[in-house]
Amino acid sequence: TAGWSDIDVRAVDTVRVLAADAVQKTGNGHPGTAMSLAPLAYLLYQHVMRVDPNDPEWIGRDRFVLSCGHSSLTQYIQLYYSGYGLELDDLKKLRTWGSKVPGHPEYHHTDGVDITTGPLGSGIASAVGMAMAQRRQRGMLDPDAAPGTSPFDHHIWTVASDGDMMEGVSGESASLAGTQELGNLIAFYDQNQISIEDDTDVSFAEDVAARYEAYGWHVQTVDWRLGGSSKGDGDYVEDVDALLAAIEAAKAVTDRPSFIALKTILAWPAPNKMGTGKAHGSALGDEEVAATKKLLGFDPEQTFEVSDEVISHVRKAKERGAQAHAEWQKGFDSWRSANPDGAKLLDRLVAHELPAGFDAAFPTFDTDAKGIASRAASGKVLTALADVMPELWGGSADLAESNNTTMDGQPSFIPANRQTEAWKGNPYGRTLHFGIRENAMGMALNGIALEGLTRPYGGTFLTFSDYMRPAVRLAALQRIPVTFVWTHDSIGLGEDGPTHQPIEHLAALRAIPDLAVVRPGDANETAAAWKAILTRRGPAALALSRQALPTLDRSEYASADGVDRGGYTLADSEKDTPDVILIATGSEVSVAVAARKTLKEKGVDARVVSLPCREWFFDQDQSYRDQVLPPNVKARVSIEAATTFGWHDIVGDNGVAIGIDHYGESADGALLMEKFGFTSEHVVQAAQDVLNSL
Amino acid sequence: TAGWSDIDVRAVDTVRVLAADAVQKTGNGHPGTAMSLAPLAYLLYQHVMRVDPNDPEWIGRDRFVLSCGHSSLTQYIQLYYSGYGLELDDLKKLRTWGSKVPGHPEYHHTDGVDITTGPLGSGIASAVGMAMAQRRQRGMLDPDAAPGTSPFDHHIWTVASDGDMMEGVSGESASLAGTQELGNLIAFYDQNQISIEDDTDVSFAEDVAARYEAYGWHVQTVDWRLGGSSKGDGDYVEDVDALLAAIEAAKAVTDRPSFIALKTILAWPAPNKMGTGKAHGSALGDEEVAATKKLLGFDPEQTFEVSDEVISHVRKAKERGAQAHAEWQKGFDSWRSANPDGAKLLDRLVAHELPAGFDAAFPTFDTDAKGIASRAASGKVLTALADVMPELWGGSADLAESNNTTMDGQPSFIPANRQTEAWKGNPYGRTLHFGIRENAMGMALNGIALEGLTRPYGGTFLTFSDYMRPAVRLAALQRIPVTFVWTHDSIGLGEDGPTHQPIEHLAALRAIPDLAVVRPGDANETAAAWKAILTRRGPAALALSRQALPTLDRSEYASADGVDRGGYTLADSEKDTPDVILIATGSEVSVAVAARKTLKEKGVDARVVSLPCREWFFDQDQSYRDQVLPPNVKARVSIEAATTFGWHDIVGDNGVAIGIDHYGESADGALLMEKFGFTSEHVVQAAQDVLNSL
Repeated sequence: TAGWSDIDVRAVDTVRVLAADAVQKTGNGHPGTAMSLAPLAYLLYQHVMRVDPNDPEWIGRDRFVLSCGHSSLTQYIQLYYSGYGLELDDLKKLRTWGSKVPGHPEYHHTDGVDITTGPLGSGIASAVGMAMAQRRQRGMLDPDAAPGTSPFDHHIWTVASDGDMMEGVSGESASLAGTQELGNLIAFYDQNQISIEDDTDVSFAEDVAARYEAYGWHVQTVDWRLGGSSKGDGDYVEDVDALLAAIEAAKAVTDRPSFIALKTILAWPAPNKMGTGKAHGSALGDEEVAATKKLLGFDPEQTFEVSDEVISHVRKAKERGAQAHAEWQKGFDSWRSANPDGAKLLDRLVAHELPAGFDAAFPTFDTDAKGIASRAASGKVLTALADVMPELWGGSADLAESNNTTMDGQPSFIPANRQTEAWKGNPYGRTLHFGIRENAMGMALNGIALEGLTRPYGGTFLTFSDYMRPAVRLAALQRIPVTFVWTHDSIGLGEDGPTHQPIEHLAALRAIPDLAVVRPGDANETAAAWKAILTRRGPAALALSRQALPTLDRSEYASADGVDRGGYTLADSEKDTPDVILIATGSEVSVAVAARKTLKEKGVDARVVSLPCREWFFDQDQSYRDQVLPPNVKARVSIEAATTFGWHDIVGDNGVAIGIDHYGESADGALLMEKFGFTSEHVVQAAQDVLNSL
Repeated sequence: TAGWSDIDVRAVDTVRVLAADAVQKTGNGHPGTAMSLAPLAYLLYQHVMRVDPNDPEWIGRDRFVLSCGHSSLTQYIQLYYSGYGLELDDLKKLRTWGSKVPGHPEYHHTDGVDITTGPLGSGIASAVGMAMAQRRQRGMLDPDAAPGTSPFDHHIWTVASDGDMMEGVSGESASLAGTQELGNLIAFYDQNQISIEDDTDVSFAEDVAARYEAYGWHVQTVDWRLGGSSKGDGDYVEDVDALLAAIEAAKAVTDRPSFIALKTILAWPAPNKMGTGKAHGSALGDEEVAATKKLLGFDPEQTFEVSDEVISHVRKAKERGAQAHAEWQKGFDSWRSANPDGAKLLDRLVAHELPAGFDAAFPTFDTDAKGIASRAASGKVLTALADVMPELWGGSADLAESNNTTMDGQPSFIPANRQTEAWKGNPYGRTLHFGIRENAMGMALNGIALEGLTRPYGGTFLTFSDYMRPAVRLAALQRIPVTFVWTHDSIGLGEDGPTHQPIEHLAALRAIPDLAVVRPGDANETAAAWKAILTRRGPAALALSRQALPTLDRSEYASADGVDRGGYTLADSEKDTPDVILIATGSEVSVAVAARKTLKEKGVDARVVSLPCREWFFDQDQSYRDQVLPPNVKARVSIEAATTFGWHDIVGDNGVAIGIDHYGESADGALLMEKFGFTSEHVVQAAQDVLNSL
């Protein structure tokens, strides 16, 4: 049993009062869940999880993911209790400018917060990625240790709400977790059946526990409502021992993820507002806060009342954390001495260093007029990196062969019993199979990156980046090193037609702050793009062609190393100042190169600028940018087989952007490129028109 | 029983041969599912569905949604058989330029195609919307008819694949359909357990049928593999009578949606490729096609072999369709004469006409310096329209009160037993509760619009438009009258912080072709925006503020009717040619108006242009646009609390775009607006800087 004494009960009740006070003081926020989940959160932080408040970055720690991020107080108050650095004064600044306790938990912002959550479904979905990463990391560093004995063993804990359960991405992820038999993942479902529109009966009739059983999870239900309703009109017993028993049972099940449905009453024990939608996302009001305090034996006149006894009791978490850490350290140290190669690898990964032989590992591609698709070049780069960079791994949302995301010869990351004729592998494998679940893939990639030791990538068609935008945004917001591999990046994909042909996607992705969108123009630019992405360690996306692109002669044209600067002069004019600048990305780079030749025959001296990555280009200093795009050269033509939206700043008032501002068609890709104007003839004509207009 | 004779069997086998031939001829496509689903598709089109090939738009028809859109041949061949206008020559042009049979089924493109599908999960999710719309339409027009007796009763049939089942949006929608007890919806799950990465074992271990039971569906399984594997290594019996019995049982269940898992072998009976990933999305190859033909008793030397006997047999569908239509017409005619008001309404809806009193119904808002949030104004507009426009209905993804999407006093659209304290309603109600399922909401809205008689809208926070982009794109691609209501449209929402504050979303949405993104600047612009959207009948999105916006004095400033042109001169300069033009949208319009006043005091004569909708503005002729933004006025400042990406074409090379190109913070919204530069002082300074630079 949890063995709670009166002081533990008082500490838990203090959580409720603090949650109500913090929201009341700021005037807005989410008090309800923080109140009713206080016992669970307290149990986890004070008793169950292996964490060390003295070292929030400890690699041996369990991970905690608050999928119901709106209930950030659930976590903040425990971080305050355990001694992660938050103090009572911080809690008083909830959701205010410059505070350590923003509306939703933010990675990089508050010590002890392992992940940014808030968008519903995202937390539990990224927890699945963390659980996958934990297994992969163990497989890389300590594969032969008996279960539970490795310093690389730890659990992923996540707390999800009704809203998390409604979002499709959690379902995708739960199905993936079931397939992957992630025994290290334990999810709590706070089943309070209240959301913003109040009683979830109007929209949510399903049997969630049965659904998780169908996904292959180990499912338990702990009912603190004793079969009663969620309205707070019946008995309610916070049976912490029953909850702990379920947790122990979940830990004992190591071949399946565990799901513990905890039936609660939102905002319990607020006498008038518990079990209502109002208690979810609004301050309770002075009266209700006072009534709650009275009920719990607190002084209604006081706010933020924490007794010395309570705080000194809960702060013992620091000692327990230090002890757990020290115990782990022994195992870790003996692992280190027994595994010098592993230790060397781990040190490099923790230091975020690139491996020896990194630069040399990249293939170079010979000049080839026919060339290869940039997706194919990307596949060759990945295969070439496989041995040098064991931390690099990834897969596809069921398009492995199309996305070229498989490193040749690498085993799949799957339970042994799930191997197929096409895919051999093991639980420590490297090739990920996400199924047709793009958003879950993105969220898993985020979780993998957040675990900290590996570098994940994942592929789908560019048009289906739409399905995973919530994940992409969270990768960018958290500035984590996830690489999205999006192939079939234009109408050039051909016959699948408008549903599969991206038009607006490049622009829509470029609009996301802190995401680098890279569209390389040939095989060597593709290699350079991977190099720049892996060197930078930020969120990045590759847009790659389905169709073959000529591999340019780099003795004639500038080195593909220019990719690292986002944009570079690929083929210069003969004059110091070009008559016209042709700016292109990806599959249209060679079209611009061809147009330059024709223009030369017509006496027009054109420069071709390859601009694979706007974001990196705009990161360069002004003098470099002016060198590539001299401000005095107003004759500019851009060409990209995508919407022209967002190109005006590059071409300027006098320039022309060639693109496609409508949906595509189902037909041969090369024919579509011609029909829709992605030809050197069109570029030549546009350049001449621009020159004539000046 | 289906009572199939030899000719039916031959016709079904002919489908398989045609599918293999069509893909082989084009060289790419998806033959496998079209082959193995031939009996199901034939049964539906020839026997089960109430459709009339002579009138593909018949409002009494059952709807068919091919959720596995890649298997478009499944539908095309049946349309050819039934006589919808496709002929053998069309099938020969599969996936080629200008043909009637594109890679995926496209609405507006091929008679008999009720919806564009291809992005997985979208079809079944929109089918849920169709089923909801059918119920609402019946409720509007013929609420008292006994079940199954109304001309407005029909079924929605959808065929989904493993990929559809993996996508989270189908899960969201299935949960919604279960909650809504949609007895008119019957979904087939083609459980062939093959996707592009071959055997789905690597990614998909769940029990799908059990999951649908958990959602509250009526679930049946028909196993043509007789318990054997999906590889084609065991017996296989296409028991059409068992399938038909399941269909009849599904029709008999009217209080729940029905799910029929049909266990098939992909590409059966292709001797070497059935049950493989290759047969999913590639031509089978000449040899395999020949072997299949031989096995089925076709001449391997011939292609597109359809016997006269087969085609005359299957074309009888036209007669049966005419007969079914005629029978329906009797009931419809008697409904008409008994319901003159209903008939009048129906005629208007079918003609896509606006109601009498439409213009007069819109509220006008008095000048008010404090003003109201545009989301609140939107709510008032909806309430004002409720009585005039019964076809208008909608709801929210669990943010009703925040999105102001509820028309006051209108009942919820829910089964009677799902009413709550907060929401009263009935199965014919009007207020939709989507739960926290944005993508399912979007797909349902699409389905509702495609049903044809009503005008749906749905709300969430603008930042969560990311979750529903796949649906938004399909609305735009299909050019259907869906209105997205996205509130909390900037950092001005405040404390919820960066996960909830849109930055890139306006740009990302503007990049979508054929979607009108409308961000009104005050309450009267909000009313004008709704009017313009409803008049236009296209896909549109409203971006609305959380915070109050001043209601401008329209006697001092131009009429809000200018919204209809996308952009207009709100406050003009005194001179004919303004010194500077300030261009703003939404909450920043009043900031620009204030800046204009200050500039005037400083001797700078500024024009303020309100630009609520780029798309409508660019639809105007050049002379109007030049009148609003005279080309010779190079001093331009735009202000919008969002990324500046995509603004350069408006402000030009000499102008400045004020925006926010990084993520927000958790703090008071007004404070954030100030901290991040959305103040009249900043606009004034920017205007002066621009003027100084010229």
